[in-house]
Amino acid sequence: MKSYSIQPLNENVRRELQQKIDYKTKPIGALGKLEELALQVGLIQGTETPELRHPHVLVFAADHGIANSGVSAYPQEVTWQMVQNFLNGGAAINVFCNQHQIQLYVIDAGVNYTFNNYHSRFINAKIGYGTQNFLEQPAMTLAQVYQCLQKGNEVIELISKQGCNIVGFGEMGIGNTSSASLITSLICERPIAECTGKGTGIDEAGLIRKIAILEKALNQLGKLSNSLDILATFGGFEIAQMAGAMLAAAEKKMILLIDGFISTAAFLIAHSINPLVKEYAVFCHQSEEMGHQIQLDYLQVEPLLHLHLRLGEGTGTALAYPLVQSAVGFFTEMASFESAGVSK
Amino acid sequence: MKSYSIQPLNENVRRELQQKIDYKTKPIGALGKLEELALQVGLIQGTETPELRHPHVLVFAADHGIANSGVSAYPQEVTWQMVQNFLNGGAAINVFCNQHQIQLYVIDAGVNYTFNNYHSRFINAKIGYGTQNFLEQPAMTLAQVYQCLQKGNEVIELISKQGCNIVGFGEMGIGNTSSASLITSLICERPIAECTGKGTGIDEAGLIRKIAILEKALNQLGKLSNSLDILATFGGFEIAQMAGAMLAAAEKKMILLIDGFISTAAFLIAHSINPLVKEYAVFCHQSEEMGHQIQLDYLQVEPLLHLHLRLGEGTGTALAYPLVQSAVGFFTEMASFESAGVSK
Repeated sequence: MKSYSIQPLNENVRRELQQKIDYKTKPIGALGKLEELALQVGLIQGTETPELRHPHVLVFAADHGIANSGVSAYPQEVTWQMVQNFLNGGAAINVFCNQHQIQLYVIDAGVNYTFNNYHSRFINAKIGYGTQNFLEQPAMTLAQVYQCLQKGNEVIELISKQGCNIVGFGEMGIGNTSSASLITSLICERPIAECTGKGTGIDEAGLIRKIAILEKALNQLGKLSNSLDILATFGGFEIAQMAGAMLAAAEKKMILLIDGFISTAAFLIAHSINPLVKEYAVFCHQSEEMGHQIQLDYLQVEPLLHLHLRLGEGTGTALAYPLVQSAVGFFTEMASFESAGVSK
Repeated sequence: MKSYSIQPLNENVRRELQQKIDYKTKPIGALGKLEELALQVGLIQGTETPELRHPHVLVFAADHGIANSGVSAYPQEVTWQMVQNFLNGGAAINVFCNQHQIQLYVIDAGVNYTFNNYHSRFINAKIGYGTQNFLEQPAMTLAQVYQCLQKGNEVIELISKQGCNIVGFGEMGIGNTSSASLITSLICERPIAECTGKGTGIDEAGLIRKIAILEKALNQLGKLSNSLDILATFGGFEIAQMAGAMLAAAEKKMILLIDGFISTAAFLIAHSINPLVKEYAVFCHQSEEMGHQIQLDYLQVEPLLHLHLRLGEGTGTALAYPLVQSAVGFFTEMASFESAGVSK
């Protein structure tokens, strides 16, 4: 496996950055989370004049063998139909990316469909036509996990060449909350029932069935010693590619915008491979999936937004992006007490 | 007093609006608060094709007689200095308004300073050089309250002529958290100690002193029967003008973006004059001031953002504005299941 040499943040500039923040014409700390964000961006870029360049959102899509075992409110075909919708510009993520001039790419990590559409937003990184059903066998092989990490790396190479230094991670994949619940349960060491929610909209009876299915899967295949085995056994192609892309993006000192429950499951994998990835991550939206809080507690982070979204697609990252802009904006554009002649 | 004839929302279109939201390519309800927001904007504008036009933020500034009695961390002169900073473009609200192409006006409702600056962002609506100290006498006369309401009305007339249909309310005024705490205590009928916080940054001892001062003021002058008397006795020129402007904006069917603690105190006054104003209001940011939660509970509303800001200036409204854009954007631009060919 590629080793990921992520740099620690540039602590040499912390004092100057904090001083610059504190000298702005506002009470100390009065911009709350935006101040923390400005400091983080400054530390990532190692400069007092940070800037956001060529923002991207990457939506990784794949299908899941488990999808037809009764864990989801929607049929598997919705995955490819929604990919087509992303390519045609009709989904929520399209609207929010357009609004903020964010470049969107949709990555076919392993959708059960052959796309003919050579659209400029489309990246073919297909590993297969969906994973295996983990009620029967591991979702993928370790070789496929490595392929996924490599594909994630290639996508980051691509957007890096386009000058990007801030990237949001989103996903589409019917059944992928089940994968995310299992990954969360195993990495955060919490019972699967606590990590399992209603996904995009199953009812109470559906939730009980979903938990029973995931418990069965855990009993059969859940004795796993490391995160790559967890990823191979219960993951998805889109989750594995996201994990690889997150690590590669942190290596390139990009700002990582992490969306909700499934993106954070991918982040848990990335974090277990190299914990320094957290220094580059901004958590964007508190998901309604109950497992998300467990992930956030495990990582000791707090998201920027809590809008009761439960959509995925990276929508939380696109909605949070203007707040990152605001953080950089106040940091680089506001007057200091001295320059404005305001009493301190 | 001018009577405010605010129209109830156009309930005739509610069913069509909700159906349009539910037919978008997403699970029902999956855009959370953005769906509520889209519905509200659609009901306000009475149309399935809502749009946001010429957004404005109005920052009302004034001084307070109480400011020099030990309730604030900053000297009174900071009010005029910060107004100058707004006019020069150096404050946080300038940065956020520029970011989102929001037109900013700074209204001198009664700052203890004479501005020579005939800046395009400046509106002279001065009622006096600060209010009286309510430890000695009512902050203003009832005649001044009516003048303030009228001035607020005139500002809304102005921006309405510029085509504005969405307006954020912000303020600047050293000492005005004290006014806001007293208004909150009296309207929400809660003890003053529960409604009083640290403002822009007094310490624990300062807070105890501030509460004692406000209790004394309440004991001396706090037997008040209606919201106009409350406003006259403990309010500020900027709070009174905001209240008038909020009512006038709702009459014109504008979307009202309400910021934090002080803006919501003004809103409490407006709401007690005509409760229909609430139908037009979007609460933007959960303030760190403890009295803000009391206000929100009283009004039974939940703000969009919680970023630990404690700055005022309308910053919460400018930061929340892109979320309102996103709500209108998904509503008007997203594909439906039918148009996108996605299985429902």
